[in-house]
Amino acid sequence: MSKYLPRLAAPWRGRPSLMALRHATTDCDKIAHTTVSMGRSLRKTSPSAYKILRTSVARLEQMIGMGHRIRLSEKEQAANAVIMAAKQKEIQRGLLDPSKFSPGKHIFETLSSIRKSPIFRLLKKMPKGGVLHAHDTALCSTEFLIALTYREHLWICTTDEGCRAIAFRFSVDKPTMKAMEACNWEPMEEFRQRRGEENVRRYLQQRFSMYPFSNFTSNNEAWSHFMGIFILLDGLLCYAPVWGDYYYNALQEFYEDGVQYLELRSLLPPLYCIGGEMLAIRDTVAIYQSEMKRFKASHPDFIGSKLIYAPLRGVEPKVVDEYVKTAVELNREFPDFMIGFDLVGQEELGRPLIEFVEPLLKMPEHINFYFHAGETNWFGSPIDENLLDAILLGTKRIGHGYAITKHPLSMQLCRLLDIAVEVCPVSNQVLQLGVDYRNHPAALMIAANVPIVISSDDPSFWRVAPLSHDFYFAFLGIAPMQADLRFLKCLALNSIKYSALRGHEKKEAFAKWQKLWDKWIDEVIQKNSA
Amino acid sequence: MSKYLPRLAAPWRGRPSLMALRHATTDCDKIAHTTVSMGRSLRKTSPSAYKILRTSVARLEQMIGMGHRIRLSEKEQAANAVIMAAKQKEIQRGLLDPSKFSPGKHIFETLSSIRKSPIFRLLKKMPKGGVLHAHDTALCSTEFLIALTYREHLWICTTDEGCRAIAFRFSVDKPTMKAMEACNWEPMEEFRQRRGEENVRRYLQQRFSMYPFSNFTSNNEAWSHFMGIFILLDGLLCYAPVWGDYYYNALQEFYEDGVQYLELRSLLPPLYCIGGEMLAIRDTVAIYQSEMKRFKASHPDFIGSKLIYAPLRGVEPKVVDEYVKTAVELNREFPDFMIGFDLVGQEELGRPLIEFVEPLLKMPEHINFYFHAGETNWFGSPIDENLLDAILLGTKRIGHGYAITKHPLSMQLCRLLDIAVEVCPVSNQVLQLGVDYRNHPAALMIAANVPIVISSDDPSFWRVAPLSHDFYFAFLGIAPMQADLRFLKCLALNSIKYSALRGHEKKEAFAKWQKLWDKWIDEVIQKNSA
Repeated sequence: MSKYLPRLAAPWRGRPSLMALRHATTDCDKIAHTTVSMGRSLRKTSPSAYKILRTSVARLEQMIGMGHRIRLSEKEQAANAVIMAAKQKEIQRGLLDPSKFSPGKHIFETLSSIRKSPIFRLLKKMPKGGVLHAHDTALCSTEFLIALTYREHLWICTTDEGCRAIAFRFSVDKPTMKAMEACNWEPMEEFRQRRGEENVRRYLQQRFSMYPFSNFTSNNEAWSHFMGIFILLDGLLCYAPVWGDYYYNALQEFYEDGVQYLELRSLLPPLYCIGGEMLAIRDTVAIYQSEMKRFKASHPDFIGSKLIYAPLRGVEPKVVDEYVKTAVELNREFPDFMIGFDLVGQEELGRPLIEFVEPLLKMPEHINFYFHAGETNWFGSPIDENLLDAILLGTKRIGHGYAITKHPLSMQLCRLLDIAVEVCPVSNQVLQLGVDYRNHPAALMIAANVPIVISSDDPSFWRVAPLSHDFYFAFLGIAPMQADLRFLKCLALNSIKYSALRGHEKKEAFAKWQKLWDKWIDEVIQKNSA
Repeated sequence: MSKYLPRLAAPWRGRPSLMALRHATTDCDKIAHTTVSMGRSLRKTSPSAYKILRTSVARLEQMIGMGHRIRLSEKEQAANAVIMAAKQKEIQRGLLDPSKFSPGKHIFETLSSIRKSPIFRLLKKMPKGGVLHAHDTALCSTEFLIALTYREHLWICTTDEGCRAIAFRFSVDKPTMKAMEACNWEPMEEFRQRRGEENVRRYLQQRFSMYPFSNFTSNNEAWSHFMGIFILLDGLLCYAPVWGDYYYNALQEFYEDGVQYLELRSLLPPLYCIGGEMLAIRDTVAIYQSEMKRFKASHPDFIGSKLIYAPLRGVEPKVVDEYVKTAVELNREFPDFMIGFDLVGQEELGRPLIEFVEPLLKMPEHINFYFHAGETNWFGSPIDENLLDAILLGTKRIGHGYAITKHPLSMQLCRLLDIAVEVCPVSNQVLQLGVDYRNHPAALMIAANVPIVISSDDPSFWRVAPLSHDFYFAFLGIAPMQADLRFLKCLALNSIKYSALRGHEKKEAFAKWQKLWDKWIDEVIQKNSA
């Protein structure tokens, strides 16, 4: 059996290749067959022979898993010792009293205590690469959103005798849109005076997030609440001057959280101006691109940002025909920036991909698909089957893919076709797919070496850091106890490898990331020896 | 691609062979490679060609899964239509409002409503084969336990000023055991008079089960409560005359729930007699065997029962040496009845198998191992690694194996070595491994064709039917929506196939099961056409 070990344990430089992944699978089969041919029981071997074999097989099983072929430099090994000591401590405390283990609980109960965790602090500073799964109006901190409500000319629309906010709108005079004629509009400053500034702050803090609802009766109820936030934010964020600022601030917040690249999914709503005039969709993209360039110019370490056009899935197939045309036009005008397509909204209430096959097959090859698929726990449902359609339609990554572990063939296809699953741990918990991170299906993807990246989906609504909390749960709750710096490094590398960045862009991206990475490694070592 | 389908869809008679399982895996690989060689995207195909391919691949993925190679007779197909109509209805209601879907909730909230479910009623009557994972003093209904407390000469020991029961003991005079000298003993009838009969009934109903605690702060807390019930029941059940009656009644209750065979794990405690004298362990086994024979004599449809000696795992390795000697002696005296060995108790607080390798390797080959392993969600812990040791030590089945899906190599070994995982859905929920059955890892075992059987572990403590509730959750919550009578039949067949029954016994067992199965199929059809 041990004859397989040297090859697997051999230094594995650089990033995983398809070939390496194929070998991992083949070796797993070989080992299994070898064990089979040895007979069903080892009772005739000596205890010491048993232990040698057992160690070999256990080590092999680990080697199959994600990141285990990365070889760390001496410095990285030193940093790893610091990180693993902190991890070990947190896990030991959890083993002694599982009720104190954060990844076993709901993020809304642990948000403030996690900020004090040494592991979290290390991860917060770690250069984590890029975020490849996040949505346009769910990026920024609640504090930034509240600050926006102080801008000039903002009106608020309330119901329940002025108690419940249902919309915002920037306007010199009282808004008069037909859709909201019956609305009780008042200037934001009056609303704030009437209700008291601190009360309004606290009220908005809640309305702009999923708090305090950690326990919905179902994921449908959670989704309905979730969609309500998007709707509430619509008039506040789709105002042309705010749209750009919001995105710029998001890049800033992400950058400060150790994120150097953002691949954004956006509905690309037409924006409105102060007089009510509407801009075109291409203007929405143009604003994004210009803000991105402005941010990049003042942050030389920043890799950049790209855009995935991701309109709503709950539509007739003919609407998807229009989507495809829009995507083609936008890509023609912004070929390096608007590079992909997806469909969004609760999969379970939208339509499955199979219904859109006809229009989707018309998408030209150079515009990539990045489909949401399998964000469900209904095994065997049409939503669940989205996974297969996403793969067969040639998706480059799978958004969420929560259900993919129930589909061995799809898992295998992801490995062979090098399709990464965008795992969003906190999102899955808040939207009620699962509670305990230790049961998150990504553990299996890690074990079986299905490529994954970690993303945050809608960090604004869960009030978490742009990426660090998701990394924290992936590292401490989802991955095996032994997962170390190699795992973390693999996640960061994957986020560049599986991005939409092109050849030369990717090369530059790796270099920018490496620079910050080396610096961080030094800091981790220094801080510990100080 | 479709060239693979005819072979896979070919009638698959009888039970799965190792060869068939190997083919399933190989085909999965082949299909994956074929898809890969077709290029990453099908955008150049026509929508109709896409749909043909997609249907083929989806069908193949289903065919890999458990039970899909079983061909149903015409009658079975008619019964299947009835069953699937009922299932479809219950799933549709769940899709519309997931908060009403029982498998998404805790059994303690749904126990009475499930009894009204048409699916549950069908499953209750279904001949389900055998229960291969259940523990000695956690088998019988609470009602039976309460009836036992009316037996003559029973004493109860209380604390908290007579309010909290902590032990029972049968004795003519006041018990005087040293271990419980400080105990406040009183005759049960006095206790009942003092507290009121109905109050005592309600009190015991709670103390003899995990109710109403559906939400412990951790699985350790749940386990501590759980172990407390075993301890409380000790003096009530380890009384020689009661021990036999309890087991006989268990067989009766299991039989009435459609269970024809029971493979019991027992600590094999020495029993006490009315005067305090203790019997030997072999007497405990002898009582079991004689009751089993008595039951079988009066229930010709009953297949039988076998015993797995399963003492506590939280001991020094030298104690396991003693266990092995005891197992050998008991097996010598009861060669057809006491056939296997396991270790029990919370894995996380006991010792991992690796520490017991030396004594365990001394077990003679003809005494099978049926190890508990991986009943945890701590990925990468020594408990998690029990899975590997169980397999390498030659276990014939794995108890729980909740964590096995995180170990692709172990999954593969189970498939190749034909080791069945004993899945106990309700137990995993009550002991806090997971809440929503739709996230239960057995879904992946079903999808990947890792052999499983469904068991109930400790139905007495969850107040569920001996097996029907676990089948209900497996069928409605864990398996894919499309899982039908073939899946159910496969579960029943597996419970005989993977039992410790020997060649001729197994043949007889299949025949006894088939007889009841055919009768049930007729009933399902008749009831529907009536």
